[in-house]
Amino acid sequence: MTPAHRSPEDHPAAVLIAPDIIALLEENPGDIQTETEELHPADLADVAELLPFDKVVPFLLALPPARAADLLEYLNEDLRTEVFEALDPEAAAVLIEQMTPDDRTDVLEELDEEHAGEILDEVGDETRRETEQLLRFDPQTAGGLMTTEFVSVPANTTVEEALERVRALAREGRREAMYAVYATDEEGRLVGVLSLRELLAAPPGGVLGDAAWTEVVNVLPSADREEVARVTANYGLVAVPVVSESGHIMGVVTVDDVIDVIQEEQTEDVQKMGGMEALDESYMEAGVGAMVRKRAGWLSVLFIGGLLTATAIHHFESELEKAILLLAFIPLIISSGGNSGSQATSLIIRAMALGEVKLADWWRVAFRELRSGLLLGAILGTLGVVRVVVWHMAGWNDYGEHFWFVGLTIGAALLGVVTFGSFVGAMLPFILRRLGLDPASASAPFVATLVDVTGLLIYFSVALLILRGRLL
Amino acid sequence: MTPAHRSPEDHPAAVLIAPDIIALLEENPGDIQTETEELHPADLADVAELLPFDKVVPFLLALPPARAADLLEYLNEDLRTEVFEALDPEAAAVLIEQMTPDDRTDVLEELDEEHAGEILDEVGDETRRETEQLLRFDPQTAGGLMTTEFVSVPANTTVEEALERVRALAREGRREAMYAVYATDEEGRLVGVLSLRELLAAPPGGVLGDAAWTEVVNVLPSADREEVARVTANYGLVAVPVVSESGHIMGVVTVDDVIDVIQEEQTEDVQKMGGMEALDESYMEAGVGAMVRKRAGWLSVLFIGGLLTATAIHHFESELEKAILLLAFIPLIISSGGNSGSQATSLIIRAMALGEVKLADWWRVAFRELRSGLLLGAILGTLGVVRVVVWHMAGWNDYGEHFWFVGLTIGAALLGVVTFGSFVGAMLPFILRRLGLDPASASAPFVATLVDVTGLLIYFSVALLILRGRLL
Repeated sequence: MTPAHRSPEDHPAAVLIAPDIIALLEENPGDIQTETEELHPADLADVAELLPFDKVVPFLLALPPARAADLLEYLNEDLRTEVFEALDPEAAAVLIEQMTPDDRTDVLEELDEEHAGEILDEVGDETRRETEQLLRFDPQTAGGLMTTEFVSVPANTTVEEALERVRALAREGRREAMYAVYATDEEGRLVGVLSLRELLAAPPGGVLGDAAWTEVVNVLPSADREEVARVTANYGLVAVPVVSESGHIMGVVTVDDVIDVIQEEQTEDVQKMGGMEALDESYMEAGVGAMVRKRAGWLSVLFIGGLLTATAIHHFESELEKAILLLAFIPLIISSGGNSGSQATSLIIRAMALGEVKLADWWRVAFRELRSGLLLGAILGTLGVVRVVVWHMAGWNDYGEHFWFVGLTIGAALLGVVTFGSFVGAMLPFILRRLGLDPASASAPFVATLVDVTGLLIYFSVALLILRGRLL
Repeated sequence: MTPAHRSPEDHPAAVLIAPDIIALLEENPGDIQTETEELHPADLADVAELLPFDKVVPFLLALPPARAADLLEYLNEDLRTEVFEALDPEAAAVLIEQMTPDDRTDVLEELDEEHAGEILDEVGDETRRETEQLLRFDPQTAGGLMTTEFVSVPANTTVEEALERVRALAREGRREAMYAVYATDEEGRLVGVLSLRELLAAPPGGVLGDAAWTEVVNVLPSADREEVARVTANYGLVAVPVVSESGHIMGVVTVDDVIDVIQEEQTEDVQKMGGMEALDESYMEAGVGAMVRKRAGWLSVLFIGGLLTATAIHHFESELEKAILLLAFIPLIISSGGNSGSQATSLIIRAMALGEVKLADWWRVAFRELRSGLLLGAILGTLGVVRVVVWHMAGWNDYGEHFWFVGLTIGAALLGVVTFGSFVGAMLPFILRRLGLDPASASAPFVATLVDVTGLLIYFSVALLILRGRLL
């Protein structure tokens, strides 16, 4: 997983170092390793992102493969893909071999199949087998997120032996997900977990199985990545074991990948809520063409939905001609409905994303929103009456002899539209979810368009009811 | 920090256990400890949340204080506050003493000052001093998030000594943030960091300072919690040291708290983007009254802004009376502007939250959005012309002899409004940020209202330009 893109402004160190690296690449590439020795791999990745593209590969090759692999874990995903496309399969294989299994999979998924195959042919048998297995999982699931490096030992191992095992693996430089040690039974099924801290605290003579927690929070490999994020957040974990139906531990999802998932999901939700398809890349990196494509679809759909407002108004044109003053309030009334709907939708989408509200809660939410909608509608309705009556009495607008009824019409329409907007806005995410769609697709513009059309109908009906025989 | 609220449906175990607990509390409270021994504290908290309130305190008191403290870390924040309000100061102090320093602070901040003071009087001197110090930090900053439990040793300590120190602390049952060991110089300043894995891998005879990384990613105690989250995500950390200006390590922010921060910030952003104040509590727990208050303010402000649309239409009423058919397109045109603006706003707010877009990028964004807006406007404008001309030719609507000009008016108005909407939607978050406000306040409803008024002016101006002498 690639972390969020970091701008050079945030990293003056990288900005300062990049020119030195360019000079060293020309004159003395051998010094690059010592020059960058103390940099965090994330900063090393920043340096790489600041270099001209033709210097990135030489820079990587000037680093020891393990450091280069560390750098690649933090590198911008697009740049990383370009780097691997530029490398010959042998050099790529050396780096791939050094990466963690989950990052390895992430890299290969982005490459075209042929090139990925060529690289896999060059890596060792064990790595290849393991990688091919991981590539079979959907990247949106726990299986697609997990690393296969973790420490598991039989439950009857002594604490001291388990600790020695951990130390030996750590010394080999293998970067296992070393936050916890998992205990297995004779059939290799997961039966316990002990954090590294608890392992260090456990009585040395004891057996792992006695010290371990037997209720292990875990997820299935097929679990959606949002579910993985929820479990990690709720239990405050740094690593979640991925366990097969048969009870065998297959891998571990680590918290850094979970944070990436949370942020990516959130970006998708925000973009959908803004009434567009998820962009899937950072704003500045997306081309204008790609961006217009992601936006034009929804915008056109909303436009076509909006056409119904024209039809509705055409339908009432003869009444409106008699009372052209009613016109002036159309945008105000339908926007108020859209705004209250957008509030309700945002509340429910977020509550669903956090798991605070379930599908089964729909009727409780409906009831809440009806009450909130009525209250909010009463507030705006009062403001509407005040607008008409005060403006009329002050002589700023002339609403005729029936101005009290005009005010009442505006007020009642607002009460109806705002109540309806809150209700529809709150129910829409439930309907989408029930249909198996993403509730976040219930964007503010979507709700607004839906409420625009019905809002007009409510307004005109109220007007006919109150003003017939007076103005209409 | 309290994790997101978990519903009983997610935790059938808790649902099954809760009735047993109620029975045991009546008959044999002594068995509760063994009965719940293997439960994860998060599940234990679920059980507590399912009990009637008058059973929660007896349940907590039936557990060993350390387990009860664990449970309290995961308990719903409001319930936790109620529990502490119900406990007498002595019993509360026993639990507080067992909690981690950061959770201790979270609990006391929620209580009224007098009760918090009474509890603090009952805890040990060291805990009290430490807690009072933490309470001085703004909860929105690194200082407010950090725990003061961490392992730091002089840099000249041997690896084996450091490991022994860690094991001794772990055995004391102190739940330090034990993901890393921090190395300090003679003046106690932070000079190095070694993860627990690296400590286990380090050559036993070596000195900590030689094995440690000397470039330690850290934050100031005054750093905003969003900054802490960004650093944690970018560097893939499980703990960030909080370091004073003078270079002394004051505490550590752990990744579980960072995940809570990310989720809370996202909830706030989504709610603001939906056009309301952040709710600060979960949807189902917020009272209807509180919710209406958070929503009515913005809704009224938007309503008052929307009043300008009525004024604008009144202003053009005499023209509209001559060409009442123009009316029908008002909602369509202004919504299209609002929708494209809402897309642009969502994109920019999210890109800002992730640090992809900085204040200084405003002109690049402006240029991008002008281009996107023109393209999107051209697409919708074409659809608009088609709507008028085709409907007219098919005989579904009658737009008169000048129907081509009417079509052109609608098309040109859409081009203008959509371009303007995209531009304004993208610039608004920059303006808010420049003014020191939260860019997420640029909600879809806010943008829509802004674009409604200007959209009407654009529409009517275009109509006057194209149709004067024909219809107007």
